[in-house]
Amino acid sequence: MKVAVIGTTGYGGVELLRILQRHSVFHIQSIHSSRGEAPIWEEYPHLYQLNNQTLETIEPEKIAAEADLVFLATPSGVSGQLAAQFAGMDIKVIDLSGDLRLKNQDDYVKWYKREAAPQHAIDKAVYGLSEWNREQIAGADWISNPGCYATSALLGLAPVVKEKLINPAAIIVDAKSGTSGAGRKPTRMNMYAEMSENFQIYKVNEHQHIPEIEQQLMEWNEDIKPITFSTHLLPISRGIMATIYVQLQKELNIAQLNQLYQEHYQNAPFVRVYPEGHYPSIKGVSGSNYCDIGLHLDVRTGRLTIVSVIDNLMKGAAGQAVQNANIMYGLDETTGIDFIPMYP
Amino acid sequence: MKVAVIGTTGYGGVELLRILQRHSVFHIQSIHSSRGEAPIWEEYPHLYQLNNQTLETIEPEKIAAEADLVFLATPSGVSGQLAAQFAGMDIKVIDLSGDLRLKNQDDYVKWYKREAAPQHAIDKAVYGLSEWNREQIAGADWISNPGCYATSALLGLAPVVKEKLINPAAIIVDAKSGTSGAGRKPTRMNMYAEMSENFQIYKVNEHQHIPEIEQQLMEWNEDIKPITFSTHLLPISRGIMATIYVQLQKELNIAQLNQLYQEHYQNAPFVRVYPEGHYPSIKGVSGSNYCDIGLHLDVRTGRLTIVSVIDNLMKGAAGQAVQNANIMYGLDETTGIDFIPMYP
Amino acid sequence: MKVAVIGTTGYGGVELLRILQRHSVFHIQSIHSSRGEAPIWEEYPHLYQLNNQTLETIEPEKIAAEADLVFLATPSGVSGQLAAQFAGMDIKVIDLSGDLRLKNQDDYVKWYKREAAPQHAIDKAVYGLSEWNREQIAGADWISNPGCYATSALLGLAPVVKEKLINPAAIIVDAKSGTSGAGRKPTRMNMYAEMSENFQIYKVNEHQHIPEIEQQLMEWNEDIKPITFSTHLLPISRGIMATIYVQLQKELNIAQLNQLYQEHYQNAPFVRVYPEGHYPSIKGVSGSNYCDIGLHLDVRTGRLTIVSVIDNLMKGAAGQAVQNANIMYGLDETTGIDFIPMYP
Amino acid sequence: MKVAVIGTTGYGGVELLRILQRHSVFHIQSIHSSRGEAPIWEEYPHLYQLNNQTLETIEPEKIAAEADLVFLATPSGVSGQLAAQFAGMDIKVIDLSGDLRLKNQDDYVKWYKREAAPQHAIDKAVYGLSEWNREQIAGADWISNPGCYATSALLGLAPVVKEKLINPAAIIVDAKSGTSGAGRKPTRMNMYAEMSENFQIYKVNEHQHIPEIEQQLMEWNEDIKPITFSTHLLPISRGIMATIYVQLQKELNIAQLNQLYQEHYQNAPFVRVYPEGHYPSIKGVSGSNYCDIGLHLDVRTGRLTIVSVIDNLMKGAAGQAVQNANIMYGLDETTGIDFIPMYP
Repeated sequence: MKVAVIGTTGYGGVELLRILQRHSVFHIQSIHSSRGEAPIWEEYPHLYQLNNQTLETIEPEKIAAEADLVFLATPSGVSGQLAAQFAGMDIKVIDLSGDLRLKNQDDYVKWYKREAAPQHAIDKAVYGLSEWNREQIAGADWISNPGCYATSALLGLAPVVKEKLINPAAIIVDAKSGTSGAGRKPTRMNMYAEMSENFQIYKVNEHQHIPEIEQQLMEWNEDIKPITFSTHLLPISRGIMATIYVQLQKELNIAQLNQLYQEHYQNAPFVRVYPEGHYPSIKGVSGSNYCDIGLHLDVRTGRLTIVSVIDNLMKGAAGQAVQNANIMYGLDETTGIDFIPMYP
Repeated sequence: MKVAVIGTTGYGGVELLRILQRHSVFHIQSIHSSRGEAPIWEEYPHLYQLNNQTLETIEPEKIAAEADLVFLATPSGVSGQLAAQFAGMDIKVIDLSGDLRLKNQDDYVKWYKREAAPQHAIDKAVYGLSEWNREQIAGADWISNPGCYATSALLGLAPVVKEKLINPAAIIVDAKSGTSGAGRKPTRMNMYAEMSENFQIYKVNEHQHIPEIEQQLMEWNEDIKPITFSTHLLPISRGIMATIYVQLQKELNIAQLNQLYQEHYQNAPFVRVYPEGHYPSIKGVSGSNYCDIGLHLDVRTGRLTIVSVIDNLMKGAAGQAVQNANIMYGLDETTGIDFIPMYP
Repeated sequence: MKVAVIGTTGYGGVELLRILQRHSVFHIQSIHSSRGEAPIWEEYPHLYQLNNQTLETIEPEKIAAEADLVFLATPSGVSGQLAAQFAGMDIKVIDLSGDLRLKNQDDYVKWYKREAAPQHAIDKAVYGLSEWNREQIAGADWISNPGCYATSALLGLAPVVKEKLINPAAIIVDAKSGTSGAGRKPTRMNMYAEMSENFQIYKVNEHQHIPEIEQQLMEWNEDIKPITFSTHLLPISRGIMATIYVQLQKELNIAQLNQLYQEHYQNAPFVRVYPEGHYPSIKGVSGSNYCDIGLHLDVRTGRLTIVSVIDNLMKGAAGQAVQNANIMYGLDETTGIDFIPMYP
Repeated sequence: MKVAVIGTTGYGGVELLRILQRHSVFHIQSIHSSRGEAPIWEEYPHLYQLNNQTLETIEPEKIAAEADLVFLATPSGVSGQLAAQFAGMDIKVIDLSGDLRLKNQDDYVKWYKREAAPQHAIDKAVYGLSEWNREQIAGADWISNPGCYATSALLGLAPVVKEKLINPAAIIVDAKSGTSGAGRKPTRMNMYAEMSENFQIYKVNEHQHIPEIEQQLMEWNEDIKPITFSTHLLPISRGIMATIYVQLQKELNIAQLNQLYQEHYQNAPFVRVYPEGHYPSIKGVSGSNYCDIGLHLDVRTGRLTIVSVIDNLMKGAAGQAVQNANIMYGLDETTGIDFIPMYP
């Protein structure tokens, strides 16, 4: 199976290479970037002698002629337009950007503050939250890969939202991410000297993953109301933790809640629900495709704290993209992405 | 004015030295540790040639005879017993531990899981949240210095709690701290290789600063109900951010809320309320005694997000302790602690 | 092929698990620790649901009866005694400690400051510097796996030492390591708050890898004199850089030197010699078994600067151990350890 | 005494503000930047409410009319031209860039790869290595403040070079710096995700501080030959360690060498020579103006290892600049810069 990667010089793109170079079924046919031709190892010296490919320009027709599947690791704003060019061509598409996630163009304009992708492209894409959308993904030609924050929040919330166990108007997500989530463009905010020994809050209640999360939550439970959602920048490269606060509406104890989560994810090879009294840490999923979940029920307040962690470049981007590709092609879901977390 | 420091080898103790060695009024008469006699610079080489004092054993009567004021930078469980020994002696006491903070011994036993300090010692101590307790502090002989998490949460919550603007049963505090907060005893959790590129949640709803926060909140507003409180460990040395979520009960816009905070803190030299659209960062207070506060009102949900940051060793420990000492002795509150934050 | 791991709870041991769980030929028969029985995931939560094995006590006869190969990831001082117990049993041994590296017991006593392993155990072990000792390793029953610092220094020095191109009395190695090299025992020096924003020098000219390096260098070139060797602690988890300074004795330009290194390592799949003007970085080998080498010739002084980097837990420990196991069993040298570096 | 700061938005500039705002003699008259007018706190939020000044454009005549002394914290290439404009005006100048350090314009062109400052400006400036040039500095109108790497290397080498104790052709400096040394311009190399868990070598034997070091060494001892000098980037914000290797020519033991260093620096309040067996660490000088030095003599090789650490923004830039200003104006050398290191 031949695959092409567009937007290879970003962190999501190069993480795709880390996976695909060792994948037993997918073969990297070509890599592309708007920066023009250069050996990839000059951009990423860690690939010296491991990947001798040269970045190529982006010619959709040529790519569609040569590859079976293309990953768009291009930024939001670029991906949607690019995807539209592949419409009608004989190639499957997995888009890692936010451009095809929101079904309503107005939502996109409001939260992303730029023009939306064509509606036909949006409509063509299936939302690739692997654990909850396997059937649709299996039959899809186009996948819109979920956002990193959205993946951690949704996997953490799914069981209690679907089972209608919580107050639908009182969901609070306090999310923290490593700096690789902001991409490889140097900015003041992601400079080492600015982030080291630092911790910052940003885009308070204004992050563009909010409507993506709400769209999915409402699909699961139409009563869900707008959520409160904060994003913080951690002094680490990789990883996201979402600490989620919800108000239980039914009387359940922690054992029952853990049981519920275990059941919901019993067939999900990449979701690990920790036993009572144990909580996941970001380093515990580093370099892997796992989403680790821990729960704490505060009996004083009736509030449930849900902790959900992922590696933003794996389960939050490249890992889930390949997981979706595996599902699309009927492979074992874990093919090529069953990395043990790297610790320490 | 002669001061003694007990528990000098901990991070709070050595931060007291950093301040007191340059303080224009307080003079370090002696430094003490249970570890016995050794030059302090052997424990802390950065003090080589700057502090030539030798750690002394802890003899309360001798200390009381020689010093006017003693700082107890000893751990919870030790401080309370030690403080009790100073009762009746002619020396003022500032205790940085949690031992004298909870007025009710049962609360202490429940949350600290050990025996409480004698009630007479607890009763003697004034809670040293400098900004809100100046008059009592000014007349006090004993101060119980607030906890680091408690300081950041309480300074962030005070205006809306005192003004009864929020739902008293829906306060959620998502707190994050650097590793120095756990002290200088090496444990697996605070090893570099374990914390680097990591972020962990711990003591979910079980942190011993919870009753301290609730005690003060209820003093301000008796309707306040138990809070939800999570603590996380950041891969940094110093600093705390509390991201606080509250539900407004009155219709106020963000300008009014900012105005309210500005007014409440207009005479507080160490509290900086950021203008609308600006949020504090941990690095912005590093090495200083400032507590920086930023606000965001989510009009979709009516929830207010309050961001409060401090340096846990300064405003969260040694800095506030000296601030209280300044107030006790009628000095300008900022004497010796008006450090500009170190950036970057 | 069944393998056992002893000393599993250390960082070297758990890195062996990361490799061996995905190895296509070696199967983890059992894991052992002196700490007694406990599920490994309780020590290392990142292995939750990935490794359900329980740590077993160390019974050499039972291990030898059940496994074909045992990895000793135990500390120096323990490994040697343990290895001696396996003598005469039908099991191959790969020891990751320093106990079997020095052929002369007196050297061990001098540098390690403790009793040496039995001479018969020392004599039985082949030094496992994979790239330079393949034939002996292929025929060996016991391997003494090289030290992390030694690996980086020796791979960097080999070509110019073997070709006698440098002044044998003027080798200076300035080495820097991440904190995982010091193991998982919490000490003050490896606490996060002490190492963050820090960089320390330690064991100046006294590191126990010095005699190991000199022993191998002298085997390659008997004229080699004692080296100058400094070790520093980096605020990172993993990785070593050795910056090596040597004085050229023959007139060679940088192109010739690069050519020489390329030739010496043309059959070494895990050594990458960077082209002129490019230098390796620690992050460029993170999580991988590569040793990356870069060269700079200073024409003003005739000195050559050799930069050599490895991941101390992979090529410096577990990775090279499995590489040696692959060679011992006639497998492709890269089996199960051809991880792409994780970047960023 | 009124001072102006030009280039305030760089890290050196803002560190000058941290010092000058609390300096008892110097008063910040005005702050300047080529970026045009904006409140400084918008660039550096940690100065919110602490410094209410607005950045002004750079008008030399106006500055000279209003201030007694100007600090040029502008980049190399800018400073020299700017300094030349102040020639003939009634204002003292301290330039923190490299533009006035090399007495020979050709050297500047060769190492900085751009046009040199006018010779008259170069000639006018005294090299401000405070500890070794106090008399000239006291009488100077213009100071060229030393480079950060140069300061650490020169203070470490001075005693043995001046006393002619070492082989003048065998000086090797392995230097490591935090990322703030590269300034506040975002580049790929100083991004958090690229530097975290990383360590890089750069400008091998090509750093522009090399001629500055050699110029001073040759002034102390005309036999000194070109040095070998490597620079590495540490994953920290602040701090430099130079590990220096020299070959002793005279038979001296470590006690004698320590004694020699102690004597040379007995009147230097900011140089601390550690006792035998102790070595400085970068964190031990953080935020302070100290240069800490430790020595190790390897009796096997006759080589002396000199370890020298500074905070690159303090003793390596702003701190030494104010130290020089203090000397120029006859103040106590430590006025306003006697900060205790911040630890941890």
